[in-house]
Amino acid sequence: MAWWSRRTRARSEAPTLSSRETAAGALRVDLADLTPAPDVYLGQCAALHLGFVELLSEGIRTAPRPADKDALARAAAIVLDRYRAITAELERLHLDRSDALQPHLASVEEFESRTRGNAWYEQVASAHVTIGFLTDFWMRLAGGLPRELGERVVDALGAGDLGEPLHRILERAIAAEPRLASRLALWSRRLVGDTMLQARSALVRHDDRSKDEAQIEPVFTELIAEHTRRMDKLGLTA
Amino acid sequence: MAWWSRRTRARSEAPTLSSRETAAGALRVDLADLTPAPDVYLGQCAALHLGFVELLSEGIRTAPRPADKDALARAAAIVLDRYRAITAELERLHLDRSDALQPHLASVEEFESRTRGNAWYEQVASAHVTIGFLTDFWMRLAGGLPRELGERVVDALGAGDLGEPLHRILERAIAAEPRLASRLALWSRRLVGDTMLQARSALVRHDDRSKDEAQIEPVFTELIAEHTRRMDKLGLTA
Repeated sequence: MAWWSRRTRARSEAPTLSSRETAAGALRVDLADLTPAPDVYLGQCAALHLGFVELLSEGIRTAPRPADKDALARAAAIVLDRYRAITAELERLHLDRSDALQPHLASVEEFESRTRGNAWYEQVASAHVTIGFLTDFWMRLAGGLPRELGERVVDALGAGDLGEPLHRILERAIAAEPRLASRLALWSRRLVGDTMLQARSALVRHDDRSKDEAQIEPVFTELIAEHTRRMDKLGLTA
Repeated sequence: MAWWSRRTRARSEAPTLSSRETAAGALRVDLADLTPAPDVYLGQCAALHLGFVELLSEGIRTAPRPADKDALARAAAIVLDRYRAITAELERLHLDRSDALQPHLASVEEFESRTRGNAWYEQVASAHVTIGFLTDFWMRLAGGLPRELGERVVDALGAGDLGEPLHRILERAIAAEPRLASRLALWSRRLVGDTMLQARSALVRHDDRSKDEAQIEPVFTELIAEHTRRMDKLGLTA
């Protein structure tokens, strides 16, 4: 009951959601002009997945319940499946995995350390928010890769369901401790800024910044709508 | 050259190895009478794999080179493949994953904290020694499970090659810093005691302890021979 009432309240507090959803469905803009070369795309995407594994592994370690350890281990397994598929594309292009990872590891590490969270439920929220947002973003960004590579990358990043188990852990944590809701809403809002910066760092920029921004802005509007939907499903204000 | 000379020295320092190897091949004893019920076997094995993932993930985080991060991520992926296969057997038996994991998490956590190591190369050595030994042991122990289950478990635990990438990282670390050899030999020797205790904790014991020991002793002799072979391959005295 508490869950539904929170959910309803959150919906009414976010009246722009349905218009955002419509916009997202209608636009489906991509970022083709801003997509980096395959080695840069795949290298940064792979490096991010190493960060996701660390985050989830820390969550496994600190999880209070065996069921949560199990769910997070399954989530980490999906992330590593995706990592293997992404790095397989590097091999297909005869690119060295280490060379491709190298330029992105420091920024991913910095991102991870800023967004990791201390309490266990913060770590799970970090995983839910950052992996959700960045996976949406990298799938969108794949539209600017050579077509067959882009399709395989989208398949790789869409393999397995990460959102559902993370959602369920958070849903249960909030139900058991309703005061968590406001702290998690605050924490998740803080995460979005860093996550958007991490996503933006992947984009190739041109001289005409205003043209770039005109292409970026609607995509980020869509990604934030997806994020809002995830928060809304948890009864949290995005 | 240094590698070969170390290796040769290690071989001559361990003159019992070849007789151990012969014994291992000839005996192939199993632990059927001491194998616990499937839920206990699978639960402890799954819990151990959660510990392995934590260990490898810590190794990914602290690895100094992108190639090592990549190799450890692949190793973690293999561990999680095995985890999924082992827990799938729990489901096949209509057993709850959480219930099966629960009794073993505390002892695995204690084991992990005792064997984790501080320096990065110690963490990799811990992974190489403990995962190698315990996987050998759990495969041997599977001989006492119902036959088809036992065969599937052996397949699951044998999937992928974990030893080779861990070996290669250590080999390279020792080549770059030869003084590491004696520290790693010492560290690995320390690990074996805790690892054997962890393995022994899985065994069902009977009233006649001396009969149990008569069954256990040759198996551990074989497992230590496998361990010695791994160390020997690195030029380390076991």
